[in-house]
Amino acid sequence: MSPPLSAALASPHRTAPARLKAPAQVAIVGATGAVGREMIACLEKRRFPVAGLRLFASERSAGRRLAFRGEALTVELLGEDSLAGSDLVLFAADAATSRRFAPAAAARGAVVVDNSSAFRIDPQAALVVPEVNSEALEGHDGIIANPNCCAAIAVLALAPLHRAAGLRRVIASTYQAASGAGAEAMDELLQSTSAYLTGRPYRPRVLAHPYAFNLFSHDSEVDPDTGANGEEQKIVQELQRLLSAPGMRVGVTCVRVPVLRAHAISMTVELERPLTPEDALALLARAPGVRVVHDPAANRFPMPSEAAGREEVLVGRVRRDLSGPEGRTLSLFVAGDQLLKGAALNAVQIAERLLAS
Amino acid sequence: MSPPLSAALASPHRTAPARLKAPAQVAIVGATGAVGREMIACLEKRRFPVAGLRLFASERSAGRRLAFRGEALTVELLGEDSLAGSDLVLFAADAATSRRFAPAAAARGAVVVDNSSAFRIDPQAALVVPEVNSEALEGHDGIIANPNCCAAIAVLALAPLHRAAGLRRVIASTYQAASGAGAEAMDELLQSTSAYLTGRPYRPRVLAHPYAFNLFSHDSEVDPDTGANGEEQKIVQELQRLLSAPGMRVGVTCVRVPVLRAHAISMTVELERPLTPEDALALLARAPGVRVVHDPAANRFPMPSEAAGREEVLVGRVRRDLSGPEGRTLSLFVAGDQLLKGAALNAVQIAERLLAS
Repeated sequence: MSPPLSAALASPHRTAPARLKAPAQVAIVGATGAVGREMIACLEKRRFPVAGLRLFASERSAGRRLAFRGEALTVELLGEDSLAGSDLVLFAADAATSRRFAPAAAARGAVVVDNSSAFRIDPQAALVVPEVNSEALEGHDGIIANPNCCAAIAVLALAPLHRAAGLRRVIASTYQAASGAGAEAMDELLQSTSAYLTGRPYRPRVLAHPYAFNLFSHDSEVDPDTGANGEEQKIVQELQRLLSAPGMRVGVTCVRVPVLRAHAISMTVELERPLTPEDALALLARAPGVRVVHDPAANRFPMPSEAAGREEVLVGRVRRDLSGPEGRTLSLFVAGDQLLKGAALNAVQIAERLLAS
Repeated sequence: MSPPLSAALASPHRTAPARLKAPAQVAIVGATGAVGREMIACLEKRRFPVAGLRLFASERSAGRRLAFRGEALTVELLGEDSLAGSDLVLFAADAATSRRFAPAAAARGAVVVDNSSAFRIDPQAALVVPEVNSEALEGHDGIIANPNCCAAIAVLALAPLHRAAGLRRVIASTYQAASGAGAEAMDELLQSTSAYLTGRPYRPRVLAHPYAFNLFSHDSEVDPDTGANGEEQKIVQELQRLLSAPGMRVGVTCVRVPVLRAHAISMTVELERPLTPEDALALLARAPGVRVVHDPAANRFPMPSEAAGREEVLVGRVRRDLSGPEGRTLSLFVAGDQLLKGAALNAVQIAERLLAS
């Protein structure tokens, strides 16, 4: 049924786009991680038409059992032929795993939605947030990249402003949760905080710096020439690509804060054309995937505690910024679940669009 | 010795500046709070020439005993005549207490250093960070305002850049610790986090929102017209005043994060004249009160855990920001102890300058 792997690999990017038929044979690679487990939950909660689900992981986690629709599935060790026969493969492992296994899966006819950074700036792969640029799925080549978590969360708030008034410049500082560094970092935050509170020593295992009641510059490598770290480079490139705005200038500072699973982002945006805070709020209130949380009288704005576990990205604190070009500069604050819209949910939403199309 | 209070109050702002002679009779108002206790520690640690120390607080805390130089001092209830005979009064209570008691103390001949916001934008009172604008102490009128904690911390990093290349615009997002909301907020962070970790319910008493592993917009009132909160308004006004730069444009977003006592600030600055990151780092390395923490290879930059308990403000992550005017836009990251440089230390440093002058 699938074309021979060797022939397919000779032309790793197909010309004919894969179609996804329901119900689908689904595989999740990296199923035991923080994102993988949320993917299982999203498929179940959103009643995705799953004919069969196979879960894959590395040696360390293979053999574990995870529940899906009341059934305990055994996690399998990922190997070269594991993904044959899958219609949809969701990758939630590292970029090296995606680079190694995704092209073959796509070549064999599967639709791949990849949560790693492996294909996000590959011009042949689509980079998609369905509410923002689902048109990029047209003629996709079998591999669809899920954006960086901050880019996915930020773009839901930025897209309506961009369409209405044109984004010229974005200056952002992030407040990123532990989950972006994986389930082990979430555990480290909990364990190190517990140790702090009870006066026990704790030596960081996952992140390089103490995490209890502390924050630090994002744990991705810093480019010695530009001074930007890997996370910041991804956000700049991906926001430009998602909004089809290669000339939009983005300055971003990424910071890891002691929060478990929802990212927050403080943004100041300069627009091509005037836009009032009131009009921006009205646009955001109508934007798909966005929930406006903006109550100045009660000092109630987006918070990670309210974004965690929610599908919508919370947006608020929309106000004039008086430091930038007059009438064309706004500040806003965003919070979104890193594991949901920042990862698993967006991947499943991409698959849903492919079913619908 | 002191002039009669009634006569002095008729002219609340003296024309002749108070001089501070060593050793001084010192009083601390609000001595049992987080800042007051650090003031006691700073006086002791820095061997300030104290002839006598009196500690004052409200009814709730009067009668407690606090140690100074190995002696247990009893905290007294603050009354109308409490501050007669003091040469130096450090106020670490709320703005209402300062407004009520500081003018009388100054009129009676004391030098007042006030940590509240009561006099910070009063043109007759000096607003001082000694490393930045000690010249503002010349001809002070007896009341010297200690800046907002974020303004004091940020200005140490901004001043050298301003002097070298002229600050045109600052865009900042803060990561503010619990201590800025007082000792009770620090306790709330610890208690609520402990409750979270052990699965116990916790109802916030001090702050309006859950604090364990959460963050939220700063807990000061939001101006319904501008959308800025009180903390943001203070920072804008005070940075302009401290740098004698009324035309400098400042856009700031203030956020409370689950950190105990050191604030961090992400800043992007636009300058009048070109300045390279290397030159900026060299200027910062020579700046008083600043310690450069900038090691891209080790991903080591300013962190609250390393700023806490330190007198210097940590500055690093200095790099070009590519979203702003070319060659004239830099980003940087700062962390400083909110209770020390952000409050108690700066107040004691002001008093030291008055002794020296």
